[in-house]
Parts: sequence; C-alpha cells; structure tokens
Amino acid sequence: MSQTDPVELTAELVRCASVTPEEGGALQLLQARLTAAGFECRWADRGNVRNLFARWGDKGHPRSFGFNGHTDVVPIGDEAAWTHPPFGAEIVDGVLYGRGATDMKSGVAAFVAAAIDLVQTAPPDGAIVITITGDEEGDAVDGTCALLDHMHAEAEQMSVCLVGEPTCPTTMGEMIKIGRRGSMTAWFEVTGVQGHSAYPHRARNPLPALARLMDRLASHEVDRGTEHFDASTLAIVTMDTGNPATNVIPARCSGTVNIRFNDAHSGASLSDWLTDEAAQVAEAFGVTIDTRIKISGESFLTPPGALSQLVATAVEAETGVVPELSTSGGTSDARFVKNHCPVVEFGLVGQSMHKVDEHVAVDHIVQLKAIYARILRDYFAA
Amino acid sequence: MSQTDPVELTAELVRCASVTPEEGGALQLLQARLTAAGFECRWADRGNVRNLFARWGDKGHPRSFGFNGHTDVVPIGDEAAWTHPPFGAEIVDGVLYGRGATDMKSGVAAFVAAAIDLVQTAPPDGAIVITITGDEEGDAVDGTCALLDHMHAEAEQMSVCLVGEPTCPTTMGEMIKIGRRGSMTAWFEVTGVQGHSAYPHRARNPLPALARLMDRLASHEVDRGTEHFDASTLAIVTMDTGNPATNVIPARCSGTVNIRFNDAHSGASLSDWLTDEAAQVAEAFGVTIDTRIKISGESFLTPPGALSQLVATAVEAETGVVPELSTSGGTSDARFVKNHCPVVEFGLVGQSMHKVDEHVAVDHIVQLKAIYARILRDYFAA
Ligand SMILES: [Zn+2]
Ligand SMILES: [Zn+2]
Repeated sequence: MSQTDPVELTAELVRCASVTPEEGGALQLLQARLTAAGFECRWADRGNVRNLFARWGDKGHPRSFGFNGHTDVVPIGDEAAWTHPPFGAEIVDGVLYGRGATDMKSGVAAFVAAAIDLVQTAPPDGAIVITITGDEEGDAVDGTCALLDHMHAEAEQMSVCLVGEPTCPTTMGEMIKIGRRGSMTAWFEVTGVQGHSAYPHRARNPLPALARLMDRLASHEVDRGTEHFDASTLAIVTMDTGNPATNVIPARCSGTVNIRFNDAHSGASLSDWLTDEAAQVAEAFGVTIDTRIKISGESFLTPPGALSQLVATAVEAETGVVPELSTSGGTSDARFVKNHCPVVEFGLVGQSMHKVDEHVAVDHIVQLKAIYARILRDYFAA
Repeated sequence: MSQTDPVELTAELVRCASVTPEEGGALQLLQARLTAAGFECRWADRGNVRNLFARWGDKGHPRSFGFNGHTDVVPIGDEAAWTHPPFGAEIVDGVLYGRGATDMKSGVAAFVAAAIDLVQTAPPDGAIVITITGDEEGDAVDGTCALLDHMHAEAEQMSVCLVGEPTCPTTMGEMIKIGRRGSMTAWFEVTGVQGHSAYPHRARNPLPALARLMDRLASHEVDRGTEHFDASTLAIVTMDTGNPATNVIPARCSGTVNIRFNDAHSGASLSDWLTDEAAQVAEAFGVTIDTRIKISGESFLTPPGALSQLVATAVEAETGVVPELSTSGGTSDARFVKNHCPVVEFGLVGQSMHKVDEHVAVDHIVQLKAIYARILRDYFAA
C-alpha cells in the first residue's frame, strides 16, 4: 500500500476556503480519508462550527495516542497583496503558498498521513484518536471544547495528546511547547462627575484615577518567572475617553489590560489583585471603578517527562536538532486538552502564519510527517 | 428727554438671532441707537465677524471710560427643550427668557442705556468708549482683538474699561472680577512600537508612558494660590487610544491636559515644565512624546485700587451688597482688554448662561443699568 503524501494532502486542504467558521470542505475531505483507512468518524458540531472526531482501534484503550489540530484559517486580508492565490496551494521552488499553509493545514495533513500509514502498514496495539476543529482561530468556544465534551459524553479518551500547531520560532525542530501561560483581560470603567475644566473642584475627574491605576498595574512586577515559565507580563492595551472638548472634564473613561501569566498565578488570584488595586484607587480618588474580567485560559504545564521525551527523541532523530521544552507564546487549544490528558505541542516554523503569502517549505511537511510517524511508532513500541 | 429702557433694549437684542458669527441685526440696532445719541460709530470687522466701535466725546480724552461686551450668543441646543422661544424675549412673571438674556445682551443693553442717558441728560467732561464684538463665544480671535487693533490704528483709547459679563455666582452684586487665571491646553502624543500583547518585550508600549505622564502631571501641586488668586489647576481632559484588540499593543496613544493658572506662572514657564516632564517620561520609557501647546490667555490682574473701588461703591449703593473682588472663573475678553488699560468685570448672576431657558430677572436689568449709570457719574465727578 502506497504511503500517504502529506504535501498533496496539505495542498488539497489549502484549496478548501475554510475561513472560520466555514468548513470549506476541509473536514469532509479528512473524514473521507480517515474513514477509508478504517477510522471511526463522528461529527461533534456545535453552533455553526463543524468538528471532526476520529478513532482507530478500541474505544478507551489504555494506549490511546491523540492528535489535535484545526482546519479553520484566519481571513486572507488584502487579497491584492498576495503574490500567490491564497487558496491556490501553488508550489514554487519547493515552497507551498496559501492561507493555512503553516497554521495549520500542513500539521493536520502530516499527522493524518502518519496515522493512516501506520494503521495500514503496521497496525499498533492501541488506539489513535484524532480531533480536528473548525473553530480555533475564532472564539474557540465551539471547537476543541465541543470535541472534548463529545468525547466525555461518548466515554472516548486519549492517554496523551500532541497538538500539531506551529511551535518553532525560526528553525525546524527547535521547540516543543510543554505548557502555555494563561491569558486574561480586564476592562476598567472609571466614572466620576462631569464638569468644566476651569472648575475641577466642582467635578470629579475620572482620568487621574485611570492614569494612576494603569501606572500601578503596568509598574508592578507580576513575578520573575518560574522553573518552566518566563515572567508573567501585563500590557495596557487601550485607554479611552473620547472627549473632544478641552474645557470639559468628562464623566467617564476606560482602560484595558491583558495579562499573560505563568503557573505562579491563577486567573482567580490575579482577578483578586486587579479588583483590589481598582478598589484602592477608586477610594483614593473618590470615583467608581467597574471591573470586568475575562479569563481566556489558565496557565498549564505538562512537566518534562515521558511525553515530552518521546516527542523530543523523534524530533532529534529526524532533524538533528535538540528541541527546547518551552512554555512561551500565546494560547492554543492545548489549554483545553490539558484538562483531558497530558498534552504537548510540536509543529512547523510559524513565521509566516496569519500573514500575507503564508507559506511552508515542502521539505518541512515531509519532515513533520516523519517526526509524527516516529512518535507513533515509538509510542506503541514502548 | 425720556430714559432709555434697558429691558426693552434687551428684548430687542434677544430677538436678533446672533449665534456666533451671525450678527443677526443686534450690532446694527446698537449702532443706530448710539449714533442717534451722538456717538461716533465705526465698524471694526474682521473675517466673517462684525464688531462695533462707538465713542462719545473727544478722541484720546484723558478721562475715557470704556465698556466692553458681546452680542453673539452660543447655539440654542435642543430647541424642543426650551419652554419659551429662544429668540422670543418673552417676559413671564418678571423674568425675560431667551438665548443671551444673561450672557450678555442684558449687560450690553444696560451699559448702552446708561451711557446714552448720561450723554443726553448730563454730558460729562470726558469720553465714553463702547466696544461690542460678535465673536466672544467663538474663537475670539476676530472680536475684541480686532476692536483693540482698530483702536490702536485709529489712536483711540480707553483710560479704564468695564466688561459687562455676568460675574455674580448666585446673588446680584456679590462679585467683581479684577483678574482672570490664564488658560492653556497641552496635547501629548506618545509613540512606541506596535506588537502582540503576548510578547510585550518585542513591542514598546506607549500606554504605560502616557499613564505615568498623566499621573505625574495630575498629581503635581501647581501652586497653592497667590495673594489675589486661587490655586492653579490642571485637569486631564482626555486619554485616547482607540485599540479594540486586546491581543495588540498599540503604536500610539494620546492625552490632553487643560491648565488654568494664576500670576505665579506664565504660559511659557508652564510650557517648559510640561515639555520637561514629557521628556523625562519619554526617556524613562523609551518612547517618543510629541507635545503641542496652545496658550489661550495669560493670567492677568488689575490690582485692587481706584477702578475696583469705583465699581464696588456703585454696586453697594445700588444693591446693598458688598462685592467680593475675585479672580475666579474662566476666560473672558478682559484678557485682551488688559493689554490696553486697567479692566474689571461686573455684571449679572450668570447661573442660566449657555443653558436651555436662559433667562434674566427684569429687575436685575434695571438694577444693572442703575449701577453702570452710577459708575459713570462717579467716574466723571471725581
Ligand atoms: Zn493555529
Ligand atoms: Zn459672555
């Protein structure tokens, strides 16, 4: 039986215009391939999002290896700026161009190809579970979460899971992600009393309170990093008033901060801190501060161990590069998977993701499939 | 010869819809009355603004008493909210309603009526100079400034000047203004480097610099007041970014402060301070801060003396109230007149100015004319 070509599969997927939440034919294509290879496929749709669950082998097998990924892509932006059609999957000088080429249709193609080849050529004693969502680039509430809910309802499980997102900053193989910082956003609305700027004592200006609060938050050293994490960061992302009149003290203004936090904190502990800071400033300035907080994801860590070692060994064998175990970067669906089982992330160099002329080296797709295939072999051989 | 009725004259002026820069017939009406009473009238128009100069008596007489005022009014706002037509000058229960009723067609009517009556019934040994602008509520650059330029060009002069703006907070007669604080506005634009909020070290966030700068400025005690002035004030009036994306650190943000300052400072000394603060913060945060400053007016003071005593004596005689000599409040055209001669301001209770259903007690108009008439008599009798 011939090997599955991950480059061809990537190209086929790129030609599906699957901008979130459009499925674009990408998941249907994968469902057909996986079904043909003996996978049991089910849809775990939610809202206007399609999500594909696929399992080869026995449900609940104690050696169930999971792959997670997404076929949805971000919008193409200014199409005129692309030098190759964004859904064309043109290959020029060994480079495949198109939206999703790195993030992450090539990753999905690589693990699907590796999984299909393994079950068809050397069926393992275990199970392979593949979850692919159409809502990673969007709100992410109807995607991997829906798949995990479906698995819970159907008593499906993974023993470990590899998320195939791009993880390497510049060189293939250099970084495995074993955790991610948490992410949260806090919106502060400060309300005082409007007035004339010539008579500030008759008004109660909310702006000095906002400036003080933002200065305090931005000046605070959240931490200095932990064993596996960089220091947490807090960024003010906006402060707004919208008052065009220089002789008017406004009644209201607002500010927003975004925090990326490590395992020294939780969303709850940071919420307490933010709320307390706001209360102190409100008290000091005699204004009201309404605080709204959204925790997008808690930090998580799969401590270095069997799973990261398995992936690192395969990466080094195929690329000659010793990967760093990192917790840097933004959020990914691994933040949901970690509630189900140990999870790490490994994939391509992500430099062109979300950009015009997104592209991937054809060689890297082939190499990535080889890494995933080796991971599966080693996992089931152990 | 019959006395000039200041209430009727106020009503006639209110019926002229003279929203800045419209003349609306108000200045033409006054020109006709003053000319008929023996005043020499000239137009000192500039741009799209009409301004009226009028003198009775000899040009350059060493005893030349000046009155200054404006007939332009602010817009009526929501006409449906008025319970009396805004240009109707309806009198109900002894109260005259209409835009400009207090600010300051009644003041203009009172001093014009007082001046006409004096020159017709007891011509003084001296001159009366009346300057009335149509651009006080607007930018004020083509109004009293144009009148003073005209006077300079024509070798006209006032020995002293009384501006007839409303000056009393709540009770007729309680306040004479002998100076005003200066006013200036500074706009700060902070520029950093845009980036992703998950990687703040790769960006250079302008927002913490803005928060720090605004906090420093707003926390600074500009002064504690001087002999004749309240403490200077600084009000942040807006901070803006306009960044809707919580995962993006913006490249740019801006903030604006408005300062009302007393005679301990000048626009130049405060500009130096603001520029220096901005430079320190820019240096500390590695951002660029562009500072633009507009000085609307320097502070000025006509120290208590003959002029303020003249006015205070007349006020007390007519109202029984001993007026306070104050430098409080916003700017007025007195800030221009003070470059020509000693100037004080006295007029009505200003509570309803610029509001819906602006109104004035008919008795107050009569009383104001009596005060102005007494001031003229006392001035020329001395
Ligand atoms: Zn992705
Ligand atoms: Zn006025």
